[in-house]
Formats: sequence, structure tokens, C-alpha cells
Amino acid sequence: MVKKRCLLTPGPAPIPEKVMKAMARPIIHHRTQQYRDIAKEVNESLKKIFKTKNNVLTLTSSGTGAMEASIVNTLSPGDTAIVVRGGKFGERFAEICSAYGVKVVPIDIEWGTGPEPGTVDRALRENPAAKAVFIQLCETSTATVYRVKDIGDIVGKTDAILVTDAISGLGADEFKMDEWGVDVALGGSQKAFMIPPGLSFVALSKKAMERTKKSTLPRYYCDLGRYEKLVEKGDSPWTPAITLVIGLREALSMMAGEGGVDGFVARHGCDAEFVRKSIVDMGLSLFSRFPSNAVTAVQVPDGTDGAALIAALKEKGITFAGGQGRIKGKIFRIAHMGAITNEDLKFALDKLKETLGEQKCR
Amino acid sequence: MVKKRCLLTPGPAPIPEKVMKAMARPIIHHRTQQYRDIAKEVNESLKKIFKTKNNVLTLTSSGTGAMEASIVNTLSPGDTAIVVRGGKFGERFAEICSAYGVKVVPIDIEWGTGPEPGTVDRALRENPAAKAVFIQLCETSTATVYRVKDIGDIVGKTDAILVTDAISGLGADEFKMDEWGVDVALGGSQKAFMIPPGLSFVALSKKAMERTKKSTLPRYYCDLGRYEKLVEKGDSPWTPAITLVIGLREALSMMAGEGGVDGFVARHGCDAEFVRKSIVDMGLSLFSRFPSNAVTAVQVPDGTDGAALIAALKEKGITFAGGQGRIKGKIFRIAHMGAITNEDLKFALDKLKETLGEQKCR
Repeated sequence: MVKKRCLLTPGPAPIPEKVMKAMARPIIHHRTQQYRDIAKEVNESLKKIFKTKNNVLTLTSSGTGAMEASIVNTLSPGDTAIVVRGGKFGERFAEICSAYGVKVVPIDIEWGTGPEPGTVDRALRENPAAKAVFIQLCETSTATVYRVKDIGDIVGKTDAILVTDAISGLGADEFKMDEWGVDVALGGSQKAFMIPPGLSFVALSKKAMERTKKSTLPRYYCDLGRYEKLVEKGDSPWTPAITLVIGLREALSMMAGEGGVDGFVARHGCDAEFVRKSIVDMGLSLFSRFPSNAVTAVQVPDGTDGAALIAALKEKGITFAGGQGRIKGKIFRIAHMGAITNEDLKFALDKLKETLGEQKCR
Repeated sequence: MVKKRCLLTPGPAPIPEKVMKAMARPIIHHRTQQYRDIAKEVNESLKKIFKTKNNVLTLTSSGTGAMEASIVNTLSPGDTAIVVRGGKFGERFAEICSAYGVKVVPIDIEWGTGPEPGTVDRALRENPAAKAVFIQLCETSTATVYRVKDIGDIVGKTDAILVTDAISGLGADEFKMDEWGVDVALGGSQKAFMIPPGLSFVALSKKAMERTKKSTLPRYYCDLGRYEKLVEKGDSPWTPAITLVIGLREALSMMAGEGGVDGFVARHGCDAEFVRKSIVDMGLSLFSRFPSNAVTAVQVPDGTDGAALIAALKEKGITFAGGQGRIKGKIFRIAHMGAITNEDLKFALDKLKETLGEQKCR
């Protein structure tokens, strides 16, 4: 008997068979009309997910490459940036800024909480020279969704741009790039997009695009101006990751088939709610005060060995993610994004309950 | 009847069925022993292809990302670099250096020829402060193989490092990183490696690794020191392109099965020789004076429309690459790398002969 296996991690997430099959067709060349038509369709479909009229540029890189692109294309050495640090990915923005000589004004918040819009407002008033504010939509490490809309209202009144890492949130948590005043929005392939890791996405508002012309940080491979010039023709400056883009087209068409991005996000909301309720019913506690619809972080109960719990579940075919950074061992995370089904979640939660019981008996 | 299709371009090149199948298996997480074992095996196998004892770092990027990594990890602003410009990819090295404030001393050579080792020697004597020499193994745009070994002998006597873009040449043209004194060697996935685009490879000698510690150019995503620290454990700093790495493991095992890298390179030599002979027998002329075993550049005969010729062949299922940059329209290129078989080449050359005849009759 084949054991059912559930990969419930916030990237990589499972790939639907249809997407796998699309990627397994004989490869085509990228400088052909056939490929350009695919790339153009992908740009148009991604705009719907980002809820933007701006082009969505596709890079061959992990999400970190897109985070770096958002910095080196919009800032100059010595610029000041306000960075919300509420988890590992907020910290990463700060690290990349520092690597490029951008001064970081950190807003450090308790992990598992989100930044108060008032705090961002105060930071902007205290640092009127700040050129950008960096936040997450979903801080993957704490499974927390941030109030991007409210922060967008505040940043929009200043000269600063709002950069939002929506890598793990897009498609699962509500997101409206244009309406919320997000200037740079980032996505990644191995999340709700249901394709393997290897692609990242960057969309720039007009305000951000103007910044790219003044920014003097050095860049070449991820020089977004080069991508922007070609994207509407379905072209890219360097050889794209052809098979992943072809898989993405298929996945985006599946997303459209679930009632578009709104239907897709709504399904994630239901699954997330189901997971949260089940966790609480089991007597466990949620880690995040503002839980994301992409992933749920659960506190490891007192007296339980978090690593042993994850290992025991792995033996049963269930892969959860552990905690990262300072909360390693203190939480585990259950992803409910993309192709992860409600049936998968039910199966995994049953196994979790069973395993917790076994661990107590020891 | 299904029309036989031959993709004979120097990247992407065809993907074997076995590799496609390996990539289409359910995705696994990268922070697991299962994946780490694969990544470790890939590092060991890549060392054999590069002929090096150094680790081979795998980045999620096109080859251009690896070219950028070779610069930002070894040089500092204001440094001088000698760059051989004998085609589009030599020009690219110079462009990236300039983007990062590295002074370029160009060695401009006629396209289709290679740099004379004596010329590199003179440039190094005239520019004793030069920190690096940048060359290609195979300059893809002109299908020319450079005398890397002889240049390595010269650069090895100086403090400069030798950076070799072996992206299109590796696996097809002879290459011996350690024996030839290459300090930074670059590879790319969509060439003789028989997998889709999306991965690039970088190996650093001890001399180059020392440079990374002194280099002050800013970097984060492609900071090779971060990769080097993790590679022997099968880990990587950011989420790797998991499916491509899994495909690569399969492809590397196929390469090993062809008598190892020497057998694999020898097969490319035979196929390249066959293509060159057939081209000359057809009354056509080779473009390059030192033709590579990865790809052959053919001069478009006088009175023939190069673009129309390529388009007519495309209609018949044969995809050749055109010329790039200043030789666009003047040449076409036939790749014979990786999974391209002698049978494919025979078929394509027959169609080429037929199409040239048809074009003359018009």
C-alpha cells in the first residue's frame, strides 16, 4: 500500500499533476512567438493576482532575489529605509539594506504580532528623509498577516515608497496592490502559485518606477528596468526558466478556474479557518495574533519536544515546517496554500492529534 | 503523423525523457536529509565535470547571474579587470564590471577568433594592478573555443585571477579547471547539462576564495561565501530550485554513464566534427576560426536571407539559432550539445541542404 504523503510546508507546496505534465512537455526556445505568447499571458494573469495595472516582472531566482531587486532598483547608498522586523523575513529586508549601504530604521515588533499603522506613521514623521518602508503581507516565519492597506494609506501621504513582500501571502491572503497603495509587490513561485521554486515576481507602481531611474545602487542581473522594457513583448533580458514559466501558465489558469483570485483567496480563508478551529479544539494555541490564511503557526505545548513531534509526523507521511530563527522548536507551521486540499488538512490534523496523544503516553 | 522536431539551439537544449520524469515526481522539501543527499551528490558530480577539487555552488539564476556573482564576489569598486571581448558574452562581462564600478581594460578581438595568449600577457604587463582576467571557454555568440589552458599559464604567474565563463562549453569542450589554473569557472543548466534553464554553477579556486574575503562590492542573494559554508552539507542559503536540481542529478548520472566527462566530451567532439564536415561539404563556410564542440556557427551564404532561411527551417521542425549582436543575420548556429543526437544532426543537415536548394530556386 502506498502511504499517503502530505507536504504541508509554506514553500515548497505541492504541485498539481496538470502543472507537472505541462512542465514535462518537450522544451521550447524562449526567443519564439510561441514562448512570448505564454510569457505575455503569464504577465496578464499575474496582474489579476496582484490586483494591479502594472506589469509583473518574472525573475529566475528565489524570493530573496526579488527582495534584493526591490532594494537595489529603488534606493541609493546612504538612503534611509524603515524596515518592520517582526520575523525572519523582516530581518532579511534589513540585512539586504545593510549589505547595500542603506541605513535601516527598524520597527521591531514582537514576533507573532503585526506592525501598528500608527507606529509606521510615527517612524515616517521622525525620519522624514526615509525613502521606503519595507513590510510583509504574510510574515512566513510567524504566520502573521500585516495590515498592508492601513500602512499603505499612511505611506501614500509621504514621498516614501511602500515595499511589500507578499511572497507567501499572495493568492492566500487578500491583497490589492493598486487600491492599497503598494509601490513594490513581491511574489514567489513555490507558494500558492502551485509551481516549484525558481521564479520570483516583482511589480512596480509608477512612483516606484520613477525611483528606479534615480536609484544609483549597482545592479545588472536584477536590473528591473531591463525587464520592464521587454515584458510586454513577452521577452526577458536573460534566458528565463522556461519550464517553470510554462508550469506557471497552467497553474494561473487553474487559479482563474477557482472563481479567479477572489474565489481562490476565499477557499484559502475557509481552509485556514478550519485549521485554526481544529487546532484550538485540540487544546493547542495559535502562535500568531493575526493569523495568515497561507499558513498557521501552532505553539508547541509545554512539555512536548517540538522537533520530535515534527519527526514523528514525518514518519507518518506528514511534513510540517518547524519554527525559524528565535522561535525554532517553539512552534510548528501548517501550510494551507495552493494545491493543499481540505482533505489533506483533515488527514494531517488527525495524525497530529494521534501523535500528540502518543507523545503524552510516553 | 507527428512531425519530428529538433531544437538545435545553444540553450535551451533538449531534455531527456528520464530527466523530465525525475523532475515530474512529487516535490520534496529542501530542508530534509533526502534533498541534502541529492544536493551533495550533485556537488560531487559537478566537480568531475569541472575537473576540480573545489566545491561547485549551484545558484537559482540564468548564466548571467553567475557572471555577476563572479564579479561582485571577487572585486572591489575601482579595481581593474582585463576583459576579452570577442562576442556577446565577453561584452556582457565588461558591461557587468562597468555597472559595478570596476574599470575595464578591454581586449577587443575580431568576432570568430580567440584571444592570443601573448595579448593577454601584454595586457597584464601593461596593467600590473589588474585584479582579474575574464574570458570564455566557448564564446557562444561566435561558437568559438578559447585557449583557456594557455591563458591560465600566463594569469597564474600574476596576482590576477582567471575567470572563465564555461557556460556553453562545459561538457562539450575540454575543460580542466584545476590543471589549467582557472580561478572562477561558471556553468549553466540549459546547455550540455541537459536540464531546463534556471540553474547556474560557480566554482572558486583557493586564490579566488581568498579574494571573496577582501572584495567589498555589495552582494546578498549571490554572496558565494554563504553558499560555500553550506554546500558540503547539501544546504543552500535560500530555497533552491528543487525540481531542477533533482533533474540535474539524473542528467549527471547519464553523463557519467557515457564514459564520464571524457567520454561525454569525446562524443561532442565527434558530433561537432561531423557537423563541420557536412557544412563544408555543402559548400558553406564556418564562421569561427577556432570552432567549439558545443555549437557550430555557419556563415549565411551571399545572396541568402539568413532570417528567411531560419524561418523556413523552423517550418520544417528544425530550430537553429541566428546570430547575436553585430553578426545578426550574417550567421546561423547549430548546437550539438547534451541530448542532441547524431541522428538529429543528420536530419537537420539534410533539411538545411534541401532548404538552401529551395531558396536558390526562388
